[in-house]
Amino acid sequence: MAVPTTFIDSNFATRTEYEASLKLSGEERLVAEEKAGTAREASIEISSGPSPITCKAMIAFGVDDLREELIVVAPPRAGEVRVKVLCNALCHTDIYTLSGADPEGLFPSVLGHEATSIVESVGEGVTSVKVGDTVVPGYTPQCKGSDCIFCISPKTNLCPKIRGTQGKGLMPDGTSRLTLKSDGSTIYHFMGCSTFAEYAVLAEISCAKVNPELEPSKACLFGCGISTGLGAVWNTAKVEPFTSVAVFGLGAVGLAVVQAAKAVGAYPIVGVDTNPKKFELAKKLGCDFCVNPMDQGDTPMQQVLIAQSPTGFGYDYTFDCTGNTNVMRSALEAAHRGWGTCVLIGVAAAGKEISTRPFQFITGRKCMGTAFGGWKTRDAIPMLIEKTLRGEIKVDHFVTHNFSGVGGTADAIKALHSGDCLRAVVTY
Amino acid sequence: MAVPTTFIDSNFATRTEYEASLKLSGEERLVAEEKAGTAREASIEISSGPSPITCKAMIAFGVDDLREELIVVAPPRAGEVRVKVLCNALCHTDIYTLSGADPEGLFPSVLGHEATSIVESVGEGVTSVKVGDTVVPGYTPQCKGSDCIFCISPKTNLCPKIRGTQGKGLMPDGTSRLTLKSDGSTIYHFMGCSTFAEYAVLAEISCAKVNPELEPSKACLFGCGISTGLGAVWNTAKVEPFTSVAVFGLGAVGLAVVQAAKAVGAYPIVGVDTNPKKFELAKKLGCDFCVNPMDQGDTPMQQVLIAQSPTGFGYDYTFDCTGNTNVMRSALEAAHRGWGTCVLIGVAAAGKEISTRPFQFITGRKCMGTAFGGWKTRDAIPMLIEKTLRGEIKVDHFVTHNFSGVGGTADAIKALHSGDCLRAVVTY
Repeated sequence: MAVPTTFIDSNFATRTEYEASLKLSGEERLVAEEKAGTAREASIEISSGPSPITCKAMIAFGVDDLREELIVVAPPRAGEVRVKVLCNALCHTDIYTLSGADPEGLFPSVLGHEATSIVESVGEGVTSVKVGDTVVPGYTPQCKGSDCIFCISPKTNLCPKIRGTQGKGLMPDGTSRLTLKSDGSTIYHFMGCSTFAEYAVLAEISCAKVNPELEPSKACLFGCGISTGLGAVWNTAKVEPFTSVAVFGLGAVGLAVVQAAKAVGAYPIVGVDTNPKKFELAKKLGCDFCVNPMDQGDTPMQQVLIAQSPTGFGYDYTFDCTGNTNVMRSALEAAHRGWGTCVLIGVAAAGKEISTRPFQFITGRKCMGTAFGGWKTRDAIPMLIEKTLRGEIKVDHFVTHNFSGVGGTADAIKALHSGDCLRAVVTY
Repeated sequence: MAVPTTFIDSNFATRTEYEASLKLSGEERLVAEEKAGTAREASIEISSGPSPITCKAMIAFGVDDLREELIVVAPPRAGEVRVKVLCNALCHTDIYTLSGADPEGLFPSVLGHEATSIVESVGEGVTSVKVGDTVVPGYTPQCKGSDCIFCISPKTNLCPKIRGTQGKGLMPDGTSRLTLKSDGSTIYHFMGCSTFAEYAVLAEISCAKVNPELEPSKACLFGCGISTGLGAVWNTAKVEPFTSVAVFGLGAVGLAVVQAAKAVGAYPIVGVDTNPKKFELAKKLGCDFCVNPMDQGDTPMQQVLIAQSPTGFGYDYTFDCTGNTNVMRSALEAAHRGWGTCVLIGVAAAGKEISTRPFQFITGRKCMGTAFGGWKTRDAIPMLIEKTLRGEIKVDHFVTHNFSGVGGTADAIKALHSGDCLRAVVTY
């Protein structure tokens, strides 16, 4: 498919222009795009397709070795989409990989996976998005293929279509689109996104086309943490009204769990965190009370929670939003005798295992987990953003820190480590 | 409530007479009972209630120390029922406790919990069963109280009404009805049943009144293993047609799982056992093929099964019927990516834990467990026995060994250890 080369890049020089263009209605935008395309064609040589783009990126060269460099982002190949990244919210998974804790983490790579972007060019055969569309990259794709048992099933969102190459830091054809400008060496992709850079190449099946009306700094939140927390409650656990909920970890994901549980009428909702500074916002968002494990002496949290639970038999639904396998065990064992469901959301450190006596299951507890909240990426992210635009999902409180430029990612990491940060959004 | 003393005992001297009486229609039986009652009243002194009964019992005096002795079974108190045990099928849980592996096992005690019995006398306030009724004792009660959140909930069968005292080997009032004839010392109850004896005292809420038409040697199977296997599939996992099923352990419980899965149209059903002698019957009952872990070299069973599964992503439903926590892990990890459900049925040895990487849950596997197959005892056992009478559940193949007299329990234990035994039924 012949498409204008670096359309957005050449026609909207700044992010502000981009954003201005986003405020146009669909029809106005089409007209603007048409004008922009005409202008571009007049100003540059006719090309058979998009050209490589040199842009800034934060490159993870190794453990905790993150540096701003110029990279060359190759044009999208068949079934691929090149996007201009507007902003990126830092997620703990990025830091986890940067820290070297992920044995499957690859270096050098461009991390980042929670972003808002605009389609700059598309590769052959791409039909579901077009140049100028606002896209939230999905780290779990949705191929929608009639031969994909996962996409067909209503029970899961784990489309495995590009799992193999994505895990190897490569695009679906087994190669990278990213090279270091200085020496041309290959840089790995990350989670199918790599949005710590001004441009990224995504598989088309990873592109959720969303309503551009939501501010990019908020839309990006739906690329990972917030969607995950909401979906854990609505899709995975299917929390019902008047059921009791315990949330372990009151970071961004945990607060999204609290909000989702509140939205469906759960009661009571208890928040658990070792940082009591998080309790005020948690209560504002839906927690009926909060518990600090540090205040409980030697009593295991599951015991504390079971004793405090409405029935004395635990909580109907418990959520681990910490990734700590000891906390996961507490969450599982704090689930209600007979029917309690524990949902694991947090990503555990490499090699860590969750253990429990089988008796916990025999007496009716269930354990399940969620990846991206069970949402089918391309169907769900647009819907969640519409709900946000309608005021049904509140997200303003998540953005506690803002930074500018790709280099601001380093500041965002510091902020996320501080403990006071929910989401640090870096606008490029 | 004034009831005839040891009605059945004095009027039907032998089990054969009992069983003959069971073949009468309801009305005929009432007449027979009336006649018997009259005869009894003429032959013994008028009493204000049931008297203690001296009878034979196998007593577990300590680890692997099982001896036949005479015990005195006190009359039932308020809310209790004394039954004449017709027969008892040996279950691995009895042997497990006898072996000392259960840290909560109490000695001296009368083990046994899979029985068919006939109500001999009832204590004050008992209304749901009457003298002469056929009863399958339930080790999990069903109080049906409007204040019991577990009995009210459709999600569980774990009525905790008498949990505290039952776990201590006592009747709900905190005392025992069993004493050693020779020295009057107290003997503990076991699982609320204690059916390794000619008479037992049960809580009324543990008594499932069943159709007496099913042979006692078959009815007793519904007191534990067979009901558990069926319910694990129908209630806990809710296996659907055309889903794939893997069953770890092809003993009585595992075969009941196979039968239940076959009944709902699961396909394929794979049986896993280290004893290939079990494969023939397993295939007859529904297994499409069987796998022996001993034939797989060093390859973990979960890997073998996933590779052989229809989709290459594991089995939709997996069942552990072994109690071995390593096998449980295999079963969990062999569950299908995205939606696979693992149901733990086997009782693990004390202190053993199941462990896995949280990633197994994050990628869509679920783990749950079942106690007595999720059946609400008093509602379900009668229903299952009706289904058996209608030919909808086949159970003949489970009774591989028959022994006579309470002392035959020792032979039954030998048989169960032999590996060729599914259920050894001892008829008293």
